[in-house]
Amino acid sequence: MPDQMVMKAALQAYVDNINKGDAPAVIALFAPDAVIEDPVGTPPKRGQEIVDWFHQAVAMKAHLTPVAPIRGSHGNAAAIAFIVQTDWEGQVTRIHSLDTCTFDDQGRITELKGYWGLDDVDGCA
Amino acid sequence: MPDQMVMKAALQAYVDNINKGDAPAVIALFAPDAVIEDPVGTPPKRGQEIVDWFHQAVAMKAHLTPVAPIRGSHGNAAAIAFIVQTDWEGQVTRIHSLDTCTFDDQGRITELKGYWGLDDVDGCA
Repeated sequence: MPDQMVMKAALQAYVDNINKGDAPAVIALFAPDAVIEDPVGTPPKRGQEIVDWFHQAVAMKAHLTPVAPIRGSHGNAAAIAFIVQTDWEGQVTRIHSLDTCTFDDQGRITELKGYWGLDDVDGCA
Repeated sequence: MPDQMVMKAALQAYVDNINKGDAPAVIALFAPDAVIEDPVGTPPKRGQEIVDWFHQAVAMKAHLTPVAPIRGSHGNAAAIAFIVQTDWEGQVTRIHSLDTCTFDDQGRITELKGYWGLDDVDGCA
């Protein structure tokens, strides 16, 4: 089980690298067999789908602003609540979101679940 | 699948009823076969363990302060980030925590996972 500080550092690196627009650095935080369900309730993404997804996020100028300290657990999981803002061809969107992640022994993300619904998007409701 | 507003109302009622010290009202928000893993990484609680756990929370004067709007999903799940303060025989403890929940079709909580580690407790770390 990775140390709590290792998991929290990985989630902080996730935020920082998305905000820098560094898709390869974001993708490197994930285990090769990682699964992303974001938003929860949509089909899981794996492998190349994850690679494509983060390149798209960077193309949309995704910017994450944490709204509270990252939470750990008593196991191999951690979580972060944030607002994500995207800017796609001048259309700015803000979503109130929250991710939970599990990690392998090397501190790589094995599963990410993103909690946000349509009514968590500013301006939609 | 319950409506997003139904799940968010259930999580708000969870906060409000804990803060009122109304353990039966909190327990009534859960399906009979619900499972609680709080904190994540500890053995799951079911049935009478859940009843006992919430009565203990009320005895410890647990008080939840949400730190961001409740998040929904595109499925049967929602999440809330909060600070929980307890007061046990004069010893006040504050924990930075975050819960994810799944719901049944009647809007009852079927699973609750609480994310917090020892270093999310103010004063421990």
